[in-house]
Amino acid sequence: MFVSVRRSALAAVSLLSLCAAPALAQDAATIRAAEQVRDAALNDTVAMDYVTQLTTRFGPRPAGSASETAAAQWAAGYMRELGFKNVHIQAFPLVGWERGEESASIVGANPQPLVVAALGHSPGTPAGGIEAEVVRFASLEDLQAAPDGSLAGKIAYVDAGQMVPMQSGAGYGPLTRIRGAGPAVAAQKGALAFIMRSAGSDEHRMPHTGTTRYVDGVVPLPGFALSAPDADQLSRLVSYGEPVRVRLSSTAHTYETTSHNVIGDMPGDERPEEIIVLGSHMDSWDLGTGAIDDGAGGAITIAAAKAIAEQGRTARTVRVILYGSEEVAQPTDTGNGGGAYLRSLSPEDLANHVFAGESDFGAGRVYALQLPVGAQTGAFADAANRVLYPIGVLRTNTPETSGGADIGPIVRAGVPVFGLQQDGLRYFDLHHTADDTLDKIDPVQLRQNVAAWAGLIWLVADSDVDFRAMRPAE
Amino acid sequence: MFVSVRRSALAAVSLLSLCAAPALAQDAATIRAAEQVRDAALNDTVAMDYVTQLTTRFGPRPAGSASETAAAQWAAGYMRELGFKNVHIQAFPLVGWERGEESASIVGANPQPLVVAALGHSPGTPAGGIEAEVVRFASLEDLQAAPDGSLAGKIAYVDAGQMVPMQSGAGYGPLTRIRGAGPAVAAQKGALAFIMRSAGSDEHRMPHTGTTRYVDGVVPLPGFALSAPDADQLSRLVSYGEPVRVRLSSTAHTYETTSHNVIGDMPGDERPEEIIVLGSHMDSWDLGTGAIDDGAGGAITIAAAKAIAEQGRTARTVRVILYGSEEVAQPTDTGNGGGAYLRSLSPEDLANHVFAGESDFGAGRVYALQLPVGAQTGAFADAANRVLYPIGVLRTNTPETSGGADIGPIVRAGVPVFGLQQDGLRYFDLHHTADDTLDKIDPVQLRQNVAAWAGLIWLVADSDVDFRAMRPAE
Repeated sequence: MFVSVRRSALAAVSLLSLCAAPALAQDAATIRAAEQVRDAALNDTVAMDYVTQLTTRFGPRPAGSASETAAAQWAAGYMRELGFKNVHIQAFPLVGWERGEESASIVGANPQPLVVAALGHSPGTPAGGIEAEVVRFASLEDLQAAPDGSLAGKIAYVDAGQMVPMQSGAGYGPLTRIRGAGPAVAAQKGALAFIMRSAGSDEHRMPHTGTTRYVDGVVPLPGFALSAPDADQLSRLVSYGEPVRVRLSSTAHTYETTSHNVIGDMPGDERPEEIIVLGSHMDSWDLGTGAIDDGAGGAITIAAAKAIAEQGRTARTVRVILYGSEEVAQPTDTGNGGGAYLRSLSPEDLANHVFAGESDFGAGRVYALQLPVGAQTGAFADAANRVLYPIGVLRTNTPETSGGADIGPIVRAGVPVFGLQQDGLRYFDLHHTADDTLDKIDPVQLRQNVAAWAGLIWLVADSDVDFRAMRPAE
Repeated sequence: MFVSVRRSALAAVSLLSLCAAPALAQDAATIRAAEQVRDAALNDTVAMDYVTQLTTRFGPRPAGSASETAAAQWAAGYMRELGFKNVHIQAFPLVGWERGEESASIVGANPQPLVVAALGHSPGTPAGGIEAEVVRFASLEDLQAAPDGSLAGKIAYVDAGQMVPMQSGAGYGPLTRIRGAGPAVAAQKGALAFIMRSAGSDEHRMPHTGTTRYVDGVVPLPGFALSAPDADQLSRLVSYGEPVRVRLSSTAHTYETTSHNVIGDMPGDERPEEIIVLGSHMDSWDLGTGAIDDGAGGAITIAAAKAIAEQGRTARTVRVILYGSEEVAQPTDTGNGGGAYLRSLSPEDLANHVFAGESDFGAGRVYALQLPVGAQTGAFADAANRVLYPIGVLRTNTPETSGGADIGPIVRAGVPVFGLQQDGLRYFDLHHTADDTLDKIDPVQLRQNVAAWAGLIWLVADSDVDFRAMRPAE
């Protein structure tokens, strides 16, 4: 029964596509099938099972670690058991990073421990640690304005205030600028080390890690994030007017290693060479177990593909990729799972990637659909809206997403991309901290994600809508 | 002007007290004065200033540590500057405890770190650590039911489920039983170490420390609390059915040291020998900065006494005591600040302690007044209700409080006690964790506490109500 539904839908869309018009019809039967996939996915159990087992069995999964390697093997087996075809692991080299041991404390008149986390790719301190006076800056710009050499023998400390929580997560950007550029700017001013208020929105003793930027192939200074209460404390003590000295110690270091993309398909039966890629990343930071960042993304995309396959075979292939290195990807151009995947594709393969999406924003509910700019109105958009609006997802006319770090490489190579935006209001309370653990996932919201992905992807996979043709001319 | 108000109130109450009736009138002028003290205290700035400086300058203040010693000196000076008289420091010996370094991890097939905190007074592990299989119990009773010797070579793990949050904080009790008795019971069964789910109500990677119990002068086994997400993780892994091995390491140890009660008076002008004691504790656990436990208590009681003094001198003396050792008090009978204070009192001094209260439940708003059983109705209770109800405090007929660890010794020696109950619904999210920091204090709720204490204590201090006479015969 299902096949006939699909084929009739396909016929209708194929006919329209001959008109080369940007507006494409989805017939009622296709929409009905997408609604059925969506509703079945609202009762999904695969996503929660996957993320539970992944995080429980493997804990933290830094790219290139033994844990990431073992998790990739396990996930490949998990996907095979669910019926994914052509499941394989794609290995690629990267520069890994290990935290080792770290500590920080205020010394002198007001001795007390501080809770810090070294920034990703930060070098360690000299063996005896670093002890120096802290110079506080209220912004990266203030640090940049300090004369070169003026921080000789000092520790640069940037406390630009707490991250602003926003549904879109937009409050994170300004702080990643500080994290990326801070160590290099501090080095230029002569500092011995760099510390910053965590790029996060929580009020716990939970420092947020995250990668800082290489300059000439290295990160020039040891860099650390202070938890929000510790940043409050240090800034208050500095405000009391007496010199504040801090001791920092870290054995962080980089190493050459290998990471792994896990790739599996639910093949289409009409045009199996046409691929819709659903991406997320398997690696996590080392502090938590990577439940929301990004075990949830793998859970959502695997469960969505499985929900689609349970309804029947679509015309196009649905491919799920668990990228092996997103967090610590260095060098940026080669150490990234998305880049490794792109390099594995021939031009013909790449041309057959008809649509891509990435789930890498936690397990909070989806609230908005971003289609490519040329497809934000018209028949496909109407069909998508009809399927997604009942589960709380609004079609938006926001600028087209560029995808995240995982699908960014293929998106920049021309693959059209959609976005299913998730509620990020409290995402950065947990992201990149020890608190990124399974208990933070709400199973109901996770299932709503699976339903949104499954319903939307059904519409795409069982049609011949060509989003590339719908892009405005550049 | 004020003095005449007070004296007229005093005259009225004295007259009534001659009748030896349990019902005591508070004349309208006394109540009006108490209301004025209360309202002035709603704008208090002393409490927030005190707890800010205390926690910022001294950080964690374990009893007997250099930090607690320095904080006691500083607090004595702070009280003198506020106008307290007879400010002095009362030193006493105790067995202190230092955490040192600690770590825990799952080893074997699913290697991953665990976030733990050694329990107070736990001994350290042998130098090489302890590595053994975990045996999980769902309750202390289940552990108690295990045959003696049955845990030889194993680690006993009690996960009795997450603490139930309650306004009264009553959910904490069942878990303190596990923490107190667990290591001794585990030792009896042959175990090498004891671990438990944290006695707390948060869902963060924040283990809760707290003291376990001496048996024959020592704690028999190294004991640890696991954060809630780590307890979830360990219990899940155990449920998968394969043996789970854990490695534990700790350099915790006890040492002989000295702690310090800080004592200061706002003297009465009619019967200065009659004392109302307002207690809290200065020491804190080592993980946080002791803002809510119990920097806030000192802040509230100091600020309340100061607010009273600003209104004028009361008939009786208001004494504020910052007890130096509450958390790690060992031996229980002598290492406790409240016990040291009691021992310093002559029988006559003790007899002059007319009322006692303790603020040791954070900085959340006060919602209920507990008077001694015989005083829960009548003129004084009516007056107290009139002063406190407008700021959200309900007079209750609950069983008389026994005070906490600080004033417990003098209460057991016969001093009447009142309770101003604070909202504890989320108190155990923070209590005894690294997250007990200044930012968790809501200044508005802190001021409401100061107002409740100041208003109530004014009524008591400027009268000759004798709560001892109102106790039911035993």
